[in-house]
Amino acid sequence: MFDKVLIANRGEIAVRIVRACRELGIATVAVYSDADEDSLAVSLADEAVRIGPAPATASYLNIPNVIGAALKTGADAVHPGYGLLSEDPYFAEICADHDLTFIGPSPSVMEAVGDKAVARQAMTTAGLSLLPGTVDPVHTFDEANDVAEEIGYPVVIKASAGGGGRGITVVRRPDDLREAYRRTRATAQAVFRNRDVYLERYLDRARHVEVQVLADAHGDAVHLGERDCSVQRRHQKLVEEAPSPGVSPQLRDELGKAALTGATGVGYRGAGTMEFLLDDDGHFWFMEMNARVQVEHPVTEMVTGVDIIAEQIRVAAGQPLSFTQDDVALDGHAVEFRINAEDPARDFAPTPGRLDVFHPPGGPWTRVDTACRQGDRIPPHYDSMIAKLVVWGPDRAAALDRAGRALDEFVIAGGGVHTTTGFHRAVVDHPEFRSGDVRTDFLTRHPPEELT
Amino acid sequence: MFDKVLIANRGEIAVRIVRACRELGIATVAVYSDADEDSLAVSLADEAVRIGPAPATASYLNIPNVIGAALKTGADAVHPGYGLLSEDPYFAEICADHDLTFIGPSPSVMEAVGDKAVARQAMTTAGLSLLPGTVDPVHTFDEANDVAEEIGYPVVIKASAGGGGRGITVVRRPDDLREAYRRTRATAQAVFRNRDVYLERYLDRARHVEVQVLADAHGDAVHLGERDCSVQRRHQKLVEEAPSPGVSPQLRDELGKAALTGATGVGYRGAGTMEFLLDDDGHFWFMEMNARVQVEHPVTEMVTGVDIIAEQIRVAAGQPLSFTQDDVALDGHAVEFRINAEDPARDFAPTPGRLDVFHPPGGPWTRVDTACRQGDRIPPHYDSMIAKLVVWGPDRAAALDRAGRALDEFVIAGGGVHTTTGFHRAVVDHPEFRSGDVRTDFLTRHPPEELT
Repeated sequence: MFDKVLIANRGEIAVRIVRACRELGIATVAVYSDADEDSLAVSLADEAVRIGPAPATASYLNIPNVIGAALKTGADAVHPGYGLLSEDPYFAEICADHDLTFIGPSPSVMEAVGDKAVARQAMTTAGLSLLPGTVDPVHTFDEANDVAEEIGYPVVIKASAGGGGRGITVVRRPDDLREAYRRTRATAQAVFRNRDVYLERYLDRARHVEVQVLADAHGDAVHLGERDCSVQRRHQKLVEEAPSPGVSPQLRDELGKAALTGATGVGYRGAGTMEFLLDDDGHFWFMEMNARVQVEHPVTEMVTGVDIIAEQIRVAAGQPLSFTQDDVALDGHAVEFRINAEDPARDFAPTPGRLDVFHPPGGPWTRVDTACRQGDRIPPHYDSMIAKLVVWGPDRAAALDRAGRALDEFVIAGGGVHTTTGFHRAVVDHPEFRSGDVRTDFLTRHPPEELT
Repeated sequence: MFDKVLIANRGEIAVRIVRACRELGIATVAVYSDADEDSLAVSLADEAVRIGPAPATASYLNIPNVIGAALKTGADAVHPGYGLLSEDPYFAEICADHDLTFIGPSPSVMEAVGDKAVARQAMTTAGLSLLPGTVDPVHTFDEANDVAEEIGYPVVIKASAGGGGRGITVVRRPDDLREAYRRTRATAQAVFRNRDVYLERYLDRARHVEVQVLADAHGDAVHLGERDCSVQRRHQKLVEEAPSPGVSPQLRDELGKAALTGATGVGYRGAGTMEFLLDDDGHFWFMEMNARVQVEHPVTEMVTGVDIIAEQIRVAAGQPLSFTQDDVALDGHAVEFRINAEDPARDFAPTPGRLDVFHPPGGPWTRVDTACRQGDRIPPHYDSMIAKLVVWGPDRAAALDRAGRALDEFVIAGGGVHTTTGFHRAVVDHPEFRSGDVRTDFLTRHPPEELT
């Protein structure tokens, strides 16, 4: 097992990783930007190293500074969390060059699954179903137009190097294709420094389901069932749950097998997620693979009892998986709500500021993952998610009753700070959500303005 | 189901009950003394009624004021929590007189199990084993002396009306009996207004195990396995866990059957606990029954998935138990630590004061039940327990690793406030506790001063 892990991240996921390491008896090094000097992760970690000014490019994305901190403190592994450097194969390579274990898959696997067009090719080879579309990127409008005509509208244009819901454009009419193609390529270039895009048939009425996979270095792999992340706003997840209200035990088995086939097909190791779109007839299509731990991993933890971060660290250290597929049993239902410092009344604009009051809910089966403490300041430089509220119940109805209670209890107040707790409360009370009859168009058909 | 429940309690248990009611869709009324005007329970409940000045006798124990608050607000049931009026049959009767459902057993059952001598008699009748001793109270020193000679030393003298670890004296030598008898009777009179005491053989090397029972009004009763509460200081519990490291599945079955025999034998209804002493040969003896929810109920909740407070409310409303004995399965291990505002360096003297900093731990499988928020003031008038930290893990070792992490994370600071977190950290690290080899004499053999 590792002696010391450097956490190349910030916020709640840095805190989550410190907790897992401490429970495993591993020392931790936090890295921080000037804006995070007084953060919870810094105070909980055994050591902390400043790596630069507030903008992520100058600190959390500054590879020489991160590697320097690891070498200086004698860390033997690096946990990248999610976002930031977590899906950068180059960073994983530099870690290896410096004898630091990167807690994630190999650089070549990251490269293969990170490029969505390449991943589509690999999953086709592994025998998974893909929605009609292009496997290779399209390079001209005419090519895009031909593909769209062939697969039929609506289509979706996606950045090959995309992630986090950015670089995705749905096109409903041929007239809109040219502008959408131009715009998506421009966004892809600006955000991901790679203008490649591909086309896919777009499903209006589908669930976003994703399967958590864990694979060790000894050839064993397990899946932990699915999460349903259909409540999305502009392709960004807001509410996630496990299991999916739309997945039967038999379908779960099929999804799990497909996920394992895909993951082992690319030689995956560590914690990863296979994302699928699922229609109402039980057909599902591979969308993409996330080669890292996901924001929503806690809902799977709550229904399986498996500590995904601890297991991820164990397999990265070369240990075999601590359990087999037969040991995995789902118990009850868990739902996660992303509490963002955003103002729903102003189109979810970020509202950084000082947390004069911060009282997270507590009590039975109520988990809060956050890096915030009363009196902390939310810096304006990073993602606006400030907490994850996760509740468990013996069934979905009980979990939602608990969610309503916990959301009501959450008090966050401060100069200028707004949050999404009220929005989530409205989602929990919505008859359609309540019934489990949710597809990715839920928030398009019921806009947040109308809900709250 | 009830429309509105009045909570005749304060602190963390009042908050726990508000949460359960809200999840069940029941409105809540908090009552409060002047010292608790700004408390969390008051802010979370739907309504709140002042019932008097700070001393409990003038407010929380003032039956007319509590009943008046229930009638004024139109509550249809009263939840007494633990302590305070929870074991007062007279209070339960007054509730019934005013058409308020008392959430607990009937007054006659409370009376029978509340007097420990009467309860011993009832459990003997039901066929349970009792340690050698007197079933009826002893009324003279000579009688006590004769009994002690007959059952052999060490003996323990206990107040018939006792509870909370008070009115209990262990006597190791005949020379000490006279003074111990006199002192225990005096304490019993002063604390419980009843000088009756009884004698029992004292076991030096035993575990305190207790079985959680739930019984409905339709003749059905289930047990939820045992809790081990052997870590005690002067007969007061400090750490509790489920399951007990000393109980095999077969012994669990025997304990559960005995608990159900005893509880149904006295016509018990609601949530109750049967307490036993368990020796190293697997023999166990009935000690007492607690006719209320207990402080340590969360460890049972964490390993069974059963919401004990919600179930208690359901059966009080006349609903049948929502599950059967066959549905009860134990999963993993849970440990609770009582975080008291006490100074371990000054013989655990209470340290009330203002909580300038209060950062409870969070993250996976880490539950905190508390009524404290940063900035709150701990009043000097009540019990010094300010929070319960409950952790879960797939096995005992994992739960204790998590406990260490969570205790390290707990930050409580303020003018004059000390806590037991450091003491608990030392217990978690102690090889004897770690091995599960714990008996009620653990803190006698390893005094807190030596541990920390």
